[in-house]
Amino acid sequence: MREKSSFKSETDFVTWLRRRTPRRPKGLTLGIGDDAALVTVPSGHELILTADMSIEGVHFKSDLHPPEAVGHRALARSLSDIAAMGGTPRFALISLALSNNAGKVWLTSAYAGLFALAKRFGVSVVGGDTAITNGPTMLDVIVTGEVPRGRALRRSGAKVGDHIFVSGRLGMSALGLHLLQSGAPIQKPWEKAAIRSHLFPHPQCALGQFLAQHHLASAMMDLSDGLSADLRRLCDASGVGARLLADQIPIPALPDRKDALRLALHGGEDYQLLFTVPASTAARIPSHFGKVPLYCIGEIRPPKAISLITPDDKTLTIEPQGWDHFARAAQH
Amino acid sequence: MREKSSFKSETDFVTWLRRRTPRRPKGLTLGIGDDAALVTVPSGHELILTADMSIEGVHFKSDLHPPEAVGHRALARSLSDIAAMGGTPRFALISLALSNNAGKVWLTSAYAGLFALAKRFGVSVVGGDTAITNGPTMLDVIVTGEVPRGRALRRSGAKVGDHIFVSGRLGMSALGLHLLQSGAPIQKPWEKAAIRSHLFPHPQCALGQFLAQHHLASAMMDLSDGLSADLRRLCDASGVGARLLADQIPIPALPDRKDALRLALHGGEDYQLLFTVPASTAARIPSHFGKVPLYCIGEIRPPKAISLITPDDKTLTIEPQGWDHFARAAQH
Repeated sequence: MREKSSFKSETDFVTWLRRRTPRRPKGLTLGIGDDAALVTVPSGHELILTADMSIEGVHFKSDLHPPEAVGHRALARSLSDIAAMGGTPRFALISLALSNNAGKVWLTSAYAGLFALAKRFGVSVVGGDTAITNGPTMLDVIVTGEVPRGRALRRSGAKVGDHIFVSGRLGMSALGLHLLQSGAPIQKPWEKAAIRSHLFPHPQCALGQFLAQHHLASAMMDLSDGLSADLRRLCDASGVGARLLADQIPIPALPDRKDALRLALHGGEDYQLLFTVPASTAARIPSHFGKVPLYCIGEIRPPKAISLITPDDKTLTIEPQGWDHFARAAQH
Repeated sequence: MREKSSFKSETDFVTWLRRRTPRRPKGLTLGIGDDAALVTVPSGHELILTADMSIEGVHFKSDLHPPEAVGHRALARSLSDIAAMGGTPRFALISLALSNNAGKVWLTSAYAGLFALAKRFGVSVVGGDTAITNGPTMLDVIVTGEVPRGRALRRSGAKVGDHIFVSGRLGMSALGLHLLQSGAPIQKPWEKAAIRSHLFPHPQCALGQFLAQHHLASAMMDLSDGLSADLRRLCDASGVGARLLADQIPIPALPDRKDALRLALHGGEDYQLLFTVPASTAARIPSHFGKVPLYCIGEIRPPKAISLITPDDKTLTIEPQGWDHFARAAQH
């Protein structure tokens, strides 16, 4: 059943949205309801800007992803970009092109998922745009962040000899997606963990801020398209290569280690952090940041190959196999 | 003919984009190519944030709007929001969901239109997101602006007795769209002007800054959905009503004055400014700002009706008839 007239007018929808946003968070002068939002950036800080789209059929599927997860994931993508710079997320704009097949329940549930995550990260939704479309539903989530001037971490700072670290366990989101797609009953704790990683990823903002504020990392980015694709980008930006040690990579606990390694290397959407640390300060990286384990998985090498040392000491060359929208479109 | 593999990869596309953006504009620390952009906001200024979507089939039609106009209009919508706050636009993020039916020529032409307008307004494209979609093409253009602290103009400041002003000539964009849809040959200068107003609107940023910096206006917004709808919003935000004088409204030069007035009242996408000025300072509003004529079209009245005084001194009540995405969807 289509519930078309979910909100009678944009004014109704905007009124509904405004009721769900904090009245006057710090730094906000003017929120939803005018031509634009007005905010302040504290002195001595730089402003971080990022935008990430979530499109039905591309980034999520209505039959696999509950609306709460769609909203959560849409915001998590942008929060993870702020984390990757070492910043503190502050404000969000949400542009929503709502499919005319989606009803009020879907819309309010998606926003509930998004608002719940926003609250946990102290992020206020201050604006955006809304339209109804005949096409797939699309969310574009723009997040602003703050970082003390000069402290933001980039992809381009890695030097030969730096140690390569990742947070969390890689490949969990791809595994979770695989389990959801299989339709098999989910019983084991690791299956539930994988599905949770996929549906409700937790951006590593606190870790990113810690690394930036203590000058610990030389380069950083978030793992959104898979380690093989993202490490390639970090290496290209820094003009370096890399060597990974297969048995140091935190892989999912699967019976088949090869499958698990493949997921960890090429699975996307983990929203963990990938960062490099000068050898001289690598000892200052703790084994855990809060509950998040940190792993040294290899070393930055001269340009430009990325190689993988297997447990039996073979050297393989890693080719990026992560997600690329243009490449996918060209294949199909 | 579909030209699918327009760009082989996102990296190719991002490289192409980066070549077309200025290297180091003032205030930009880090542009396209990292996880997020980094910018600075000058001290004593507030940051303005706005996002506007342009969706194929909703905001533009491939058979009516050349790609250069699609790009131009997409950015113009957001620039006009910055103008409406009295701000100076600075940086843009572009999120593009490109239909897999659109080729490289369309894409590069749309960006050419957008970049040309960006250059005229000193705006740098510093980031965004890109995906390929099976649905309609969608652009979400996010623009940041700056305004001296406390000087931004809102919709909510209008007081009873204030004079109501508009810039430019209203209804021109709606007239241009009508002419394009009619398919009739375009010969007369006013026809060309109307079509140009529709395809390549000029946001009134300089006028907005002038009014904000000289404390001339009590409230301001841009005319994107039509005077009847937008004045209703300004009046609601300010808790007031309004009285318009029909023969003071700058209407298109059509043979039928009623048609022309209808376009001026209810036609959208003019991207002119609507602002209110205290009676005591109304004389300080010039008749022209540069080449842009300014018109006093009425007066703010007690809440809540918006009335129109006709040339033969009748009083009509104006109901908003501008564009509302949710209301449209509910009708169809």
